[in-house]
Amino acid sequence: MLRCDLVVSADGGQWGEEQPSLMTGLRGICSLQIDVAGAAGDLHSGTYGGTIANPIHALARIIDSMHDAGGRVAVDGFYDGVRAPSQAERARISEIPYDESEYKRQIGVPELTGEEGYSTYERAWTRPTLEVNGIWGGFQEEGIKTVLPNRAHAKITCRLVPDQVPEEVVARVVRHVKTHVPRGVTVSIRPLDSRADPYSIPGDHPGNLAAGKVLQAVYGKSPYHVRMGGTIPVCGIFLKHLAVHTVIFAFGLKDENIHAPDEFFRLSSFERGKRAYGLLLKTLVVQQK
Amino acid sequence: MLRCDLVVSADGGQWGEEQPSLMTGLRGICSLQIDVAGAAGDLHSGTYGGTIANPIHALARIIDSMHDAGGRVAVDGFYDGVRAPSQAERARISEIPYDESEYKRQIGVPELTGEEGYSTYERAWTRPTLEVNGIWGGFQEEGIKTVLPNRAHAKITCRLVPDQVPEEVVARVVRHVKTHVPRGVTVSIRPLDSRADPYSIPGDHPGNLAAGKVLQAVYGKSPYHVRMGGTIPVCGIFLKHLAVHTVIFAFGLKDENIHAPDEFFRLSSFERGKRAYGLLLKTLVVQQK
Repeated sequence: MLRCDLVVSADGGQWGEEQPSLMTGLRGICSLQIDVAGAAGDLHSGTYGGTIANPIHALARIIDSMHDAGGRVAVDGFYDGVRAPSQAERARISEIPYDESEYKRQIGVPELTGEEGYSTYERAWTRPTLEVNGIWGGFQEEGIKTVLPNRAHAKITCRLVPDQVPEEVVARVVRHVKTHVPRGVTVSIRPLDSRADPYSIPGDHPGNLAAGKVLQAVYGKSPYHVRMGGTIPVCGIFLKHLAVHTVIFAFGLKDENIHAPDEFFRLSSFERGKRAYGLLLKTLVVQQK
Repeated sequence: MLRCDLVVSADGGQWGEEQPSLMTGLRGICSLQIDVAGAAGDLHSGTYGGTIANPIHALARIIDSMHDAGGRVAVDGFYDGVRAPSQAERARISEIPYDESEYKRQIGVPELTGEEGYSTYERAWTRPTLEVNGIWGGFQEEGIKTVLPNRAHAKITCRLVPDQVPEEVVARVVRHVKTHVPRGVTVSIRPLDSRADPYSIPGDHPGNLAAGKVLQAVYGKSPYHVRMGGTIPVCGIFLKHLAVHTVIFAFGLKDENIHAPDEFFRLSSFERGKRAYGLLLKTLVVQQK
């Protein structure tokens, strides 16, 4: 019943109001939680401090062991299966105008960091990451409490690129943690629910060729070839179960507060998208014949 | 008006119900908070992950830099001024019966850790510590949120031993943190309110000699010479402003849930303490004459 030649997704966006883009990849994801346990209960840091392990120190050591000084993920085998972007794709990415001070200004960071040997867009689109999304343990309120805490926790997600497999990455992170448990604590690590395969579609896939033609017609400009650092899990699911690619054909723009309060969508994008979808269907039908 | 020869403190305790102890030292304390800042707000870990620093990773790196693999505090100058316990004191400590498996069982830890070259009691009483009492940043609830957090925080206290000075230790930790700031984040570090000088009183101080004689009479056993890992700030204040030592002459026991719910005090200790205090005053008055 679901048999088809192509899926078209309206989830995604364009590069800018006057600049179209074709999407050639999305990162996948996997997620884990680390729980570090020390004593049976919180202890007085005067009475016991210096004689037993502090789970927060242990967790800090585990987390710090996961990246090297150059910004690479230091989990053994983490990069196994990562498909390097082709020279052609890197050339395409380098053609996209990039203003580093503007990028920094928009998000309010003093400096960009990341894996050496890659540009900012290459880092965000073609390289996998391991990020701690949350950490907690011990006393967090105003002032001071001289507690030697007995628990510390962290949540982690990895963004994955073709051809990493979420379950394999989870297994490698688990193995890394298990071989980096500091003395005096016990550590449990378990996968969380969030998982999605990374996804890619060739820039010259017939669906992308049709989409590119339409974008050229509607914007009067040829589209950038970009990937997205985020994840649309269903693309990988369609590819696996229907054996078809999904063309991301979407008109959201970067400043529209996606997934955030006051999200909006421009009426002009709505008009343009309507026209573009009509043209895309026409183009695909012609190709079909 | 406050001029005196000696102060006697009822804050403290005895080693056991049938085993008296003389207190010869208390650790001091200083406290700090570290705040790490990245971007202006929390960011989508897919869109930006891999291109900017994660404040939690940065904080983990800073915390991990504060201890070496052998359990020593790795802050430059941290041990400056630390007075090594005398051979006589170490010998006294080694005479105290110590059952490691019982110590572990009571607090529920799989293993003891700490600075190499020192026994458990030496670590708790004669060596300074640096402990993270609390840490937090990013998402802490059930499940997963793919946030790249923009803030991470930690609270730290150091337990200090004679002759460390709290303000100097704070200055050294501040300097350590400032010279260990990872790229891409800004770090602020500030002292918190909790501070107290370490305190010591010789085992053969006239006040301790008197107290020891009384304990011998009341318990029929000669007291262990012990220090306490915790802090009684007023002892250092009396020593500084009145130029007199404080004899810790107290009858609390270790299992009485000190500072915790269901704290209690044995009636038998009350009776014994009453008798002991009478004898102590008598002994001191005789000495005075």
